Amino acid sequence: MRVTFDPPTDPAAYSFVHRLRVRFAETDAMGVVHHGAYLPYLESARVEYLRSLGHPYGELRQEGIELPVIELALRYLRPVRFDDVVDVHLVVASSSATTLQLGYLVTADGTARATAVTVHGVVSAGSGRPTRAPRWLANLARRP
Amino acid sequence: MRVTFDPPTDPAAYSFVHRLRVRFAETDAMGVVHHGAYLPYLESARVEYLRSLGHPYGELRQEGIELPVIELALRYLRPVRFDDVVDVHLVVASSSATTLQLGYLVTADGTARATAVTVHGVVSAGSGRPTRAPRWLANLARRP
Amino acid sequence: MRVTFDPPTDPAAYSFVHRLRVRFAETDAMGVVHHGAYLPYLESARVEYLRSLGHPYGELRQEGIELPVIELALRYLRPVRFDDVVDVHLVVASSSATTLQLGYLVTADGTARATAVTVHGVVSAGSGRPTRAPRWLANLARRP
Amino acid sequence: MRVTFDPPTDPAAYSFVHRLRVRFAETDAMGVVHHGAYLPYLESARVEYLRSLGHPYGELRQEGIELPVIELALRYLRPVRFDDVVDVHLVVASSSATTLQLGYLVTADGTARATAVTVHGVVSAGSGRPTRAPRWLANLARRP
Repeated sequence: MRVTFDPPTDPAAYSFVHRLRVRFAETDAMGVVHHGAYLPYLESARVEYLRSLGHPYGELRQEGIELPVIELALRYLRPVRFDDVVDVHLVVASSSATTLQLGYLVTADGTARATAVTVHGVVSAGSGRPTRAPRWLANLARRP
Repeated sequence: MRVTFDPPTDPAAYSFVHRLRVRFAETDAMGVVHHGAYLPYLESARVEYLRSLGHPYGELRQEGIELPVIELALRYLRPVRFDDVVDVHLVVASSSATTLQLGYLVTADGTARATAVTVHGVVSAGSGRPTRAPRWLANLARRP
Repeated sequence: MRVTFDPPTDPAAYSFVHRLRVRFAETDAMGVVHHGAYLPYLESARVEYLRSLGHPYGELRQEGIELPVIELALRYLRPVRFDDVVDVHLVVASSSATTLQLGYLVTADGTARATAVTVHGVVSAGSGRPTRAPRWLANLARRP
Repeated sequence: MRVTFDPPTDPAAYSFVHRLRVRFAETDAMGVVHHGAYLPYLESARVEYLRSLGHPYGELRQEGIELPVIELALRYLRPVRFDDVVDVHLVVASSSATTLQLGYLVTADGTARATAVTVHGVVSAGSGRPTRAPRWLANLARRP
């Protein structure tokens, strides 16, 4: 699979939002948030989204399933700075028994700062081998 | 600009390589390197590549130029683990007076672990506004 | 100055608390939060404490003052894991025109996980040279 | 156990040195290396020190032993900046069947930038419970 989703910059296109505040440790010598620090932001949004569905990621892991990122695309539009309040908007772009594709929009002060897509495999926690997603996960993109 | 380069998995397609060793701090509870920890690997390879050209990134910054990442694509093929010796192969995919596109192949033990592309803007260090790249940088993709 | 404060494990000894949730990116291959990931936790608690006083750290920086960590002591008592809800308790141990000493207790599920002390210098944002703290900061330890 | 070692600022007092280069990702908006980024530096020096003894940390982990940090003290003397070449000097301050205490001196350009001490427990990789160190590890402080 490849990234097939083109994440829009309109928050209305997203079904979930996670709010966080930029830490000083996440900034770099350019005076803005380091481009690598956005990945934990997206990850936190995913974790909170799964919790909101009643399926905390920790439970999924205890059931023997991991959702490693197998592909990632990010576009940086405007910088985010120390202490900014950031909203990470999330939408399920596609889902199947074997992969999950999520789209993200990062905003602060009501303006778009970045868009992103992550593609996840569904693997067995022990072996790291591909396994089949539980039905609720495979059908995630079909939620009303 | 968008990512237009599709990074090959053959190291022979790359012109530069930077070797590093995985730190324990870069692993996560899946027992492998966290997907976000690859970004500093790519960054270190860029910095060493510029140094190898006689243009350390620090000098570029002192001349008032920054090369922020404005777009990023990553594909994770096989995990990398604590203490692995990792080679980050780099090639200039395209360059102009305003942007730079780099391709990467991450290998360990001779096998491909990830491929990546970063697109960089050329901005003024003070204002963050777009500026023009010095000639050597704009012509980087044409190097023999 | 040296660390002179011995942080107690009783939350009642602390005057402020900041709650956060452990990110997956903060774990390591031991399956617990990496010991280095606690430092941003303490930092976030400091930032929120200053905000609670009506003196956001960002304002302090705009006024030309930084509070770099010049000394740090940490004791790890029990691990913290992915998705744990963590409370960082904070108390001002001492303050003067030139230094600030803070004590911390990290708890999760009501049990102590770590204690810490940070000592901060008061420096000029531009030069990094020591400067004098504003009166409210110098007198912080005397707050009722 | 508590930190009992006071790390000197003379490199001659240390028995091992590990060299690394500061990454851009390790800097913060103060324009210097973030105080939390020193912890992976110390960790890398430990790992290379054990390797130099013929006991790679990875092997120790495969034998079922982990050496988690249970206590940490750091003193920041002068900042380190992007692209600086940093030497992490290391000495075994004390060792026993149950704990290991290491001292560190961080230098750049021949001047002291930080000193540190880490105290490690010896625990079983599976359970995290205290276990006994192999003889070579328990006797590390007695090496000629």
